Amino acid sequence: MTIDSLNDFRDLLADLPNPDAKAAERARARQGELTKPPGSLGRLEDLAVWLASWQGAPRLDKPLALVFAGNHGVVARGVSAFPGEVTAQMVANFTSGGAAINQLTNAFGASLKVIPLDLDRPTADFCDAPAMSHADCVRAIKTGWNAVETDCDVLLLGEMGIGNTTAAAALCAGLFGGTGVDWAGPGTGLDKKGVLDKAAVIDLGLERHGAALGDPLECLARLGGRELAAIAGAAACARHNKIPVLLDGFITAAAVAPLFKMNNSALDHCVAAHVSGEPAHRRLLDRLGLDPLLDLGMRLGEASGAALGLAILQGAVATHTGMATFAEASVSGKN
Amino acid sequence: MTIDSLNDFRDLLADLPNPDAKAAERARARQGELTKPPGSLGRLEDLAVWLASWQGAPRLDKPLALVFAGNHGVVARGVSAFPGEVTAQMVANFTSGGAAINQLTNAFGASLKVIPLDLDRPTADFCDAPAMSHADCVRAIKTGWNAVETDCDVLLLGEMGIGNTTAAAALCAGLFGGTGVDWAGPGTGLDKKGVLDKAAVIDLGLERHGAALGDPLECLARLGGRELAAIAGAAACARHNKIPVLLDGFITAAAVAPLFKMNNSALDHCVAAHVSGEPAHRRLLDRLGLDPLLDLGMRLGEASGAALGLAILQGAVATHTGMATFAEASVSGKN
Repeated sequence: MTIDSLNDFRDLLADLPNPDAKAAERARARQGELTKPPGSLGRLEDLAVWLASWQGAPRLDKPLALVFAGNHGVVARGVSAFPGEVTAQMVANFTSGGAAINQLTNAFGASLKVIPLDLDRPTADFCDAPAMSHADCVRAIKTGWNAVETDCDVLLLGEMGIGNTTAAAALCAGLFGGTGVDWAGPGTGLDKKGVLDKAAVIDLGLERHGAALGDPLECLARLGGRELAAIAGAAACARHNKIPVLLDGFITAAAVAPLFKMNNSALDHCVAAHVSGEPAHRRLLDRLGLDPLLDLGMRLGEASGAALGLAILQGAVATHTGMATFAEASVSGKN
Repeated sequence: MTIDSLNDFRDLLADLPNPDAKAAERARARQGELTKPPGSLGRLEDLAVWLASWQGAPRLDKPLALVFAGNHGVVARGVSAFPGEVTAQMVANFTSGGAAINQLTNAFGASLKVIPLDLDRPTADFCDAPAMSHADCVRAIKTGWNAVETDCDVLLLGEMGIGNTTAAAALCAGLFGGTGVDWAGPGTGLDKKGVLDKAAVIDLGLERHGAALGDPLECLARLGGRELAAIAGAAACARHNKIPVLLDGFITAAAVAPLFKMNNSALDHCVAAHVSGEPAHRRLLDRLGLDPLLDLGMRLGEASGAALGLAILQGAVATHTGMATFAEASVSGKN
């Protein structure tokens, strides 16, 4: 796949493979034959059918978690409770196995790849200029696209980047309207005043870029960040390879929101693994038509929520593939 | 432990071991040192601290799922969408490994013990007589108590029994007030009229037993069932051995509700793994002060929701025990 411009990427989003309705129907029929009251596995049944619609038969032998990391010029405006150097420090922590996502991918048997994107060269402060040039944004999208191992069974997408809830909130406002206060939250731990200051920074950015924000990929380039663009690229690559995706939190959802704005079926291969403690996440998921699996008040990123979502998906596949049917087990049906 | 009467069991509930506040404090302090913004693992942090308060240091090496099965005389009144013979058929399905809980305990590494309680001798129809004599109820409580392997790290409690949402709903009404319509739901799949008929059957039972229902253990004996009494016994045994418990769905929560009525700290060692699709479950959890981990529309029983809750607990323990601290990983703290 050649992606040499934002327009190339736009073209890729216009022509997407669709889910396999027949495979979904077969999976739904099998659910009705398994030894349980119809529908009694709730969301697990839907997940098995959703997986089948992308995979043919549900399987989870090769789960892959991708965590993209980026740095943000807007951090200079004091929008984060942590200093920008923490992004690179946390990437080192991922590499040495000390972060939350290392424990969670180990616990649930997923591979983990961490992809830092030019951490020593933060994006521009979006209040002054586009965060990324088109070329920079395209490079990040391609990095994300190429990070996907196309033989994986499910892709977990997450991120790390001090300042990136600000980028994500600005991106949401650019895509869906509203101002800073509608989308800004505490992120890693701002107090009330910090959140208001962050909202004001977002408003500055929205004013700076004005009418250009009418285009979803311009929004991504001007207000987003490299890790967000990479997530968009990875999600699009997964779709073209019919790989189901578990989205992590607010930033990941914001990163794929431009795909939805370009093509409102572009996220049909994605499930929101959880809704985070970041207040705007629920609102964003509503806009994207995504119903989160988990609600555990998590707000860490790193694909940590996606990893817990993988466990639920494993339960869905285990029951779908392993249970006996009423006929096999000689269990009587409904009265 | 000798339990020869309901009064013996009552005495056991009056004197319960408490959580270890110091161990909880140590765990909470460790959470604050791990490489993540404070509180950002949300409910996972609370779960690690809760486990620590019962275990000293959180561990999950030996999870045990107990599924108790019983039959109910009230089934003769047409309260279930499935015939009573399904209870024994499903026990056979558990034994041969074909049920949902087999797949889920395998997926998440828990042992599974299934304990059928006199399936060929259903309890009495509670509209006519107490479902169980005191002696029968005591036997079931002891069976539950003795089923607990006291070296397990966490206990998952669940059940199977055609007709037992009716027993559970009646028990809730007996303990917390209200009538049949307040607590009856579709169970394995009744239609609207079926639910109303079920509510009327519950009202008959409430009228039959009247003032006797003022005592929680009388409620259990008169309206419950053997698998419910066994769950109550197992939960009490776990408490006396400081073993944390994951409760499955509506019936399991109803089964432990008499313990709560006798001693409102009796369920401090329990977490509700999920809230089920059975409408009264949420109301019951509110009464018990339990905040469910998951909400996936499941309504199967068999400890299936508890098994998914175990996965979340595994995430909590993995992060608590495996993550690096800020100092270990040389990550900068908050600004």
